[in-house]
Amino acid sequence: MITSCFGASYKEVQIGDIVTLAQDKPFVLECGVSISNFPLAYQSYGTLNARRSNAILICHALSGDQYVCGTHPVTGKEGWWDRMVGPGKPIDTNHFFVICSNVIGSCMGSFGPKETNPATAKPYGVSFPFITLGDMVRAQALLLDHLGIEKLFCVIGGSMGGMQALEWAARLPHRIQAAMPIATSIRQSAQNIAFHEIGRQAIMADPDWCDGNYLEQRKYPAKGLAVARMAAHVTYLSESMLQQKFGRHLQGENFTYGFDADFRIESYLRHQGQSFVERFDANSYLYLTRAASYFDLTEGGRIKLTDLFAGTKVRFCVVSFTSDWLYSSIESRNLVRALNAVAANVSFTEIECDKGHDSFLLDVPEFDAVMRGFINGSAALFGISPPDGGVR
Amino acid sequence: MITSCFGASYKEVQIGDIVTLAQDKPFVLECGVSISNFPLAYQSYGTLNARRSNAILICHALSGDQYVCGTHPVTGKEGWWDRMVGPGKPIDTNHFFVICSNVIGSCMGSFGPKETNPATAKPYGVSFPFITLGDMVRAQALLLDHLGIEKLFCVIGGSMGGMQALEWAARLPHRIQAAMPIATSIRQSAQNIAFHEIGRQAIMADPDWCDGNYLEQRKYPAKGLAVARMAAHVTYLSESMLQQKFGRHLQGENFTYGFDADFRIESYLRHQGQSFVERFDANSYLYLTRAASYFDLTEGGRIKLTDLFAGTKVRFCVVSFTSDWLYSSIESRNLVRALNAVAANVSFTEIECDKGHDSFLLDVPEFDAVMRGFINGSAALFGISPPDGGVR
Repeated sequence: MITSCFGASYKEVQIGDIVTLAQDKPFVLECGVSISNFPLAYQSYGTLNARRSNAILICHALSGDQYVCGTHPVTGKEGWWDRMVGPGKPIDTNHFFVICSNVIGSCMGSFGPKETNPATAKPYGVSFPFITLGDMVRAQALLLDHLGIEKLFCVIGGSMGGMQALEWAARLPHRIQAAMPIATSIRQSAQNIAFHEIGRQAIMADPDWCDGNYLEQRKYPAKGLAVARMAAHVTYLSESMLQQKFGRHLQGENFTYGFDADFRIESYLRHQGQSFVERFDANSYLYLTRAASYFDLTEGGRIKLTDLFAGTKVRFCVVSFTSDWLYSSIESRNLVRALNAVAANVSFTEIECDKGHDSFLLDVPEFDAVMRGFINGSAALFGISPPDGGVR
Repeated sequence: MITSCFGASYKEVQIGDIVTLAQDKPFVLECGVSISNFPLAYQSYGTLNARRSNAILICHALSGDQYVCGTHPVTGKEGWWDRMVGPGKPIDTNHFFVICSNVIGSCMGSFGPKETNPATAKPYGVSFPFITLGDMVRAQALLLDHLGIEKLFCVIGGSMGGMQALEWAARLPHRIQAAMPIATSIRQSAQNIAFHEIGRQAIMADPDWCDGNYLEQRKYPAKGLAVARMAAHVTYLSESMLQQKFGRHLQGENFTYGFDADFRIESYLRHQGQSFVERFDANSYLYLTRAASYFDLTEGGRIKLTDLFAGTKVRFCVVSFTSDWLYSSIESRNLVRALNAVAANVSFTEIECDKGHDSFLLDVPEFDAVMRGFINGSAALFGISPPDGGVR
């Protein structure tokens, strides 16, 4: 049971499993700060087989959390990948043990800026240490240690989750057999850094942000966070999808000659901003966008991708969507080119789809087929047995 | 002499020529409100010839103003199209009389929300009536009446200025001979409506906006306006230009693990936001984005473009830029297709350029050549004589 503070509506929310990690030895973040006894919240679906070999780790995106499927405790809606994960679904929980943990820095029970700093008995706020994608992944590895899983069958993620999948493949390749980075990139582009900066500035411009101490002052930068979310949300959709879905349709019959939401797209965006405020912590948004902007597998060009992946035994499936302008297919192709150059086992699928970056979350049957094919093919290749020990 | 209030630094600024229009009969705005005796600020460059036939009207974009060239009285920098307009330049002020007026709704001396309402002796703020692109153009026509110019040689504009050029061609074709709509569209797309809404929400979220009455309260929503500008500015540039110009370059040597501007693109965007605040009125930004979002030559599909332009005698040059994702070439092509279908005299140039929407303001030699060619060719076709009466 933790206290949720989203949108300044303080309520008790039941969070699923939370483990305390780094109990024996400190966990050193890339920024240099050491942490210990920190919480990591996770959900699991399906059953681990006797050989502990059928585990799939799903890494969530910036605004996601561990509630992949089932009912979300804060929103009351279904989890963000309910269509993809479950019994009989492409990631089939009858066969695989699916884990998703809330990334550190986030706000759904894991170590993040809204948690209480034991040293001060106050929320961390912006005294929270800076975390990186690498830190998130190493924290996930500690969770696997806790669960007694030495090697993942597969790590899967889209967007910032895809970056985590790439971190796994690059830094901890001995702990995974397969990786599926979806709609992602080996580093954050200038344009994406720019959009993240806009979001942070919107939040920090809100006086209710209180220099990061809004929880203590029982305020909430709801307006700033809503603007940040609206700006980000537009980048998740393609122009053609926006045009098809909303076009210039009005809410009413005529222009109102006012600043209310005249167009349906305006009303939709306001709704997106508002519902985000009700489930996400503003400081987490600052920290996670910062972590994503810092992400660069090549460390500023100092490391070659071909060196990073030389000799890799990981089986890759790289997926991009034609209308994704946030992480375009070109970026996936660059990754695939490097993997091919080191003779990695890599398949690449560019899916023709007009739904933009969010395609990986939406109804795209071809993507379901790619997912099912890669998972089942890899399971056969690696001899992964289902939990009942029978033949799949 | 007017009082400038940008960024809450109240200073006296010398604005060029200001005429009072609608003195004899009221000017009815599309929203239904009648206005009279309203100011329109403009600049002119070059000399009107004896036949008054060499006038070129330049329509500025959303954040532009009448200071096309020379020194801007607020910023102290050169005008926004100094590279294009002047003696010997593509729009040659040795040959043509160039006019640019500040659009109504804006903030550089024309009738706009920061002007004083004579009825209350207070700034209009959000009691200012809603204006449309059509209203802006009809106000420009009143200015031409005042100047004794019956027919323009040419009307030219980029972005929201291009929409005004299209309004001229569609609604007042008898008053122009040629039109050059650049990097624009016949209507605002859903994506562009979305970005405008984000900007407005950022401004209105700022408590210093004071429900639109910040001038009276001697406050200024600087932070909100800066965020709005940052969000808009990203849309003016292409991804590839951002990548080339900024990439992932840091301000310092290493990550600071903080929320200061670590990346150069972040610092650049903050600077863009800040300098905009120093020269632009926040309420004007609300009104002008609203006007642009309302823009639709087809009036919600009720009017066919081919009907609108049937029998037009206007000579058109439509220009788009390959990397402009705000007003893509596809939108220009749709316009050109309709003009071709009514056998209009239209040329279309899609310029290969990676500088994004802002290409029309930047150093693009091919665009200069297109401009010079269209202007000089049209002048020859229509027999426009230079101001000295000699042969060009």
